[in-house]
Amino acid sequence: MYQKIDVHTSEKCYPIFIGTDLVNDRTLLRRYIVGKQVLLVSNETVAPIYLSKVLEAFQDKQCDVVILKDGEKFKNEESLFSIYNHLIENHHHRDTTLVALGGGVIGDITGFASATYQRGVQFLQIPTTLLSQVDAAIGGKTAINHPMAKNSIGCFHQPAAVLIDVNTLKTLPSREFYAGFGEIIKYGILSGPDFFNQIIQALAQGLLQNTETLISIIKSCCEIKAQFVEKDEREISGERALLNLGHTFAHALETYTHYEKWLHGEAVGIGLYCAALLSNQVANLDPFWIDEIDKALKNANLPRRIPKDFDITALSKCMLMDKKIINKTIRFILIREPGNCYIENNISMDQLQGVLEAAKG
Amino acid sequence: MYQKIDVHTSEKCYPIFIGTDLVNDRTLLRRYIVGKQVLLVSNETVAPIYLSKVLEAFQDKQCDVVILKDGEKFKNEESLFSIYNHLIENHHHRDTTLVALGGGVIGDITGFASATYQRGVQFLQIPTTLLSQVDAAIGGKTAINHPMAKNSIGCFHQPAAVLIDVNTLKTLPSREFYAGFGEIIKYGILSGPDFFNQIIQALAQGLLQNTETLISIIKSCCEIKAQFVEKDEREISGERALLNLGHTFAHALETYTHYEKWLHGEAVGIGLYCAALLSNQVANLDPFWIDEIDKALKNANLPRRIPKDFDITALSKCMLMDKKIINKTIRFILIREPGNCYIENNISMDQLQGVLEAAKG
Repeated sequence: MYQKIDVHTSEKCYPIFIGTDLVNDRTLLRRYIVGKQVLLVSNETVAPIYLSKVLEAFQDKQCDVVILKDGEKFKNEESLFSIYNHLIENHHHRDTTLVALGGGVIGDITGFASATYQRGVQFLQIPTTLLSQVDAAIGGKTAINHPMAKNSIGCFHQPAAVLIDVNTLKTLPSREFYAGFGEIIKYGILSGPDFFNQIIQALAQGLLQNTETLISIIKSCCEIKAQFVEKDEREISGERALLNLGHTFAHALETYTHYEKWLHGEAVGIGLYCAALLSNQVANLDPFWIDEIDKALKNANLPRRIPKDFDITALSKCMLMDKKIINKTIRFILIREPGNCYIENNISMDQLQGVLEAAKG
Repeated sequence: MYQKIDVHTSEKCYPIFIGTDLVNDRTLLRRYIVGKQVLLVSNETVAPIYLSKVLEAFQDKQCDVVILKDGEKFKNEESLFSIYNHLIENHHHRDTTLVALGGGVIGDITGFASATYQRGVQFLQIPTTLLSQVDAAIGGKTAINHPMAKNSIGCFHQPAAVLIDVNTLKTLPSREFYAGFGEIIKYGILSGPDFFNQIIQALAQGLLQNTETLISIIKSCCEIKAQFVEKDEREISGERALLNLGHTFAHALETYTHYEKWLHGEAVGIGLYCAALLSNQVANLDPFWIDEIDKALKNANLPRRIPKDFDITALSKCMLMDKKIINKTIRFILIREPGNCYIENNISMDQLQGVLEAAKG
């Protein structure tokens, strides 16, 4: 049983399925394999739990497997070329299908490999973390990290389909589960008070054990993201850039800590708090909402402060490599109020560093 | 002074300029730089001759330079990442423009870097070899080679413009110049007897010293290629695949010899002869045309035979990695007669190896 959202892009229309037990749904899994070859990419954490189930669906295909190490720091050149090597050594052709079984790292790197192997082959997203189910697996952004700049090498390549099985969240460590709320709370702020409050309530009342609540929240996030992607698929007009709320800060925090201290969703947690502080200074965000955002992040067990010993000058330098820079100006996504965000180009280095200092704690 | 052809793709329409002295045309060079940053990519052979001229046009920009070693075997992972490193270390943003100054290798790798840096930045093609002017720089195919398979990593990314300065051919070594005729003769076969005979004539009468003749031939090739690209930009319907005439053989010959024995156009020369032999067996190509193609290749000083000591079994295995394979069948482009080519899926290994043996000499 599943619910379905269609994402309409210039290139094609593809479905997101959200439900329970989808990794055991052979019919659904097989529907998006075009040829006789499959390359399944997963990691050392997810593979032992779900790989054999998924492989069963492809028994009559040539199905090769790449297992990467688990973690953001393995979303790199070496992992990417290990996927290419597998494809080439096993003679995968242009009608092969890549399957990404894992979190955002697996989805991003598998997506990039499928965008660039033989100038583009099909791929299927099976996100198994909350963060990738609500965000990373949707919208066709693919990438690897450069040691000096996150997601700096990549392209746009839409999947053939996204299969979200919420049962996979049952085996997710608590820390990883809550990291997903970095993005979910972001969608709450982008969407407006109604969805924001629904998230707060779910967090406060422990409704997250309830599969229906979970599916409802994940579905809303996917719908919001799909709307932004449909309006501005390649982040040209700027609409899609709003999805980067909190991310200019988050990416700098991740670069500064070599992707080792926080999960991406956790860095987004701190980033959302920084964005709220900056929005209060520059965009008149009501302090009430700083508190509400801070509370939501706290209820999701997310970090919200920059550690006191961080060098703010060095941290702000990390932002100069952000992809949202145009003509050497860093762009921030700011909040006037929930449901009303915009791109701000005029932030001085002093203002920025002031906010970073104020976000310490 | 220049002539102009427009290429209409789904993404955009971009111009090809063909003329003399374009590398000194500051206005034209600057027209396709969007922001304040330029990364110019060239190689050790071309840079000493043309780099300073081109750089003069960008004096008021942040202009960084990457000089790669010259040769197909440097169209690899290492060169690609040296471009990324330059971009990131020099803080190039999403509004930077990459400029490819060199032959097909420089164009392909610079195109791929610009397709994938920050999910796509603009790039300008300034092809300086005959082969890249008539073929490689047009149509948006970008790639690097994998040690086991040519062009196996890449994507489609159209340039902002192509600037073809035929004066740059004056400094091109004779061997490189004639290698361009591998592709030009291919266009003759694809187009039909009229253009084929015009090429034969130009070769026989030494008209190639004549700038007008050269421009006319280059322009015709660009027009033919643009038509194929416009009909089937991403090689989906099959029209564009016809441009691969001779290339299934050529790529295998290049892989077999580790890209060291022949220039790409030379391998295409042998490939066209093989395609003619196979076309005679399978598609009733008149033996008259085998001779005509052989003569044209000879007049262009191109190799036309597979060396006698080549292991045909190993060579045919190299073809199993070709990108034109679909559902494990190798596809060949065959000639019924000049102007009438098609895709043939039903070639047995025996037929193929018979042709490879017959092409030895």
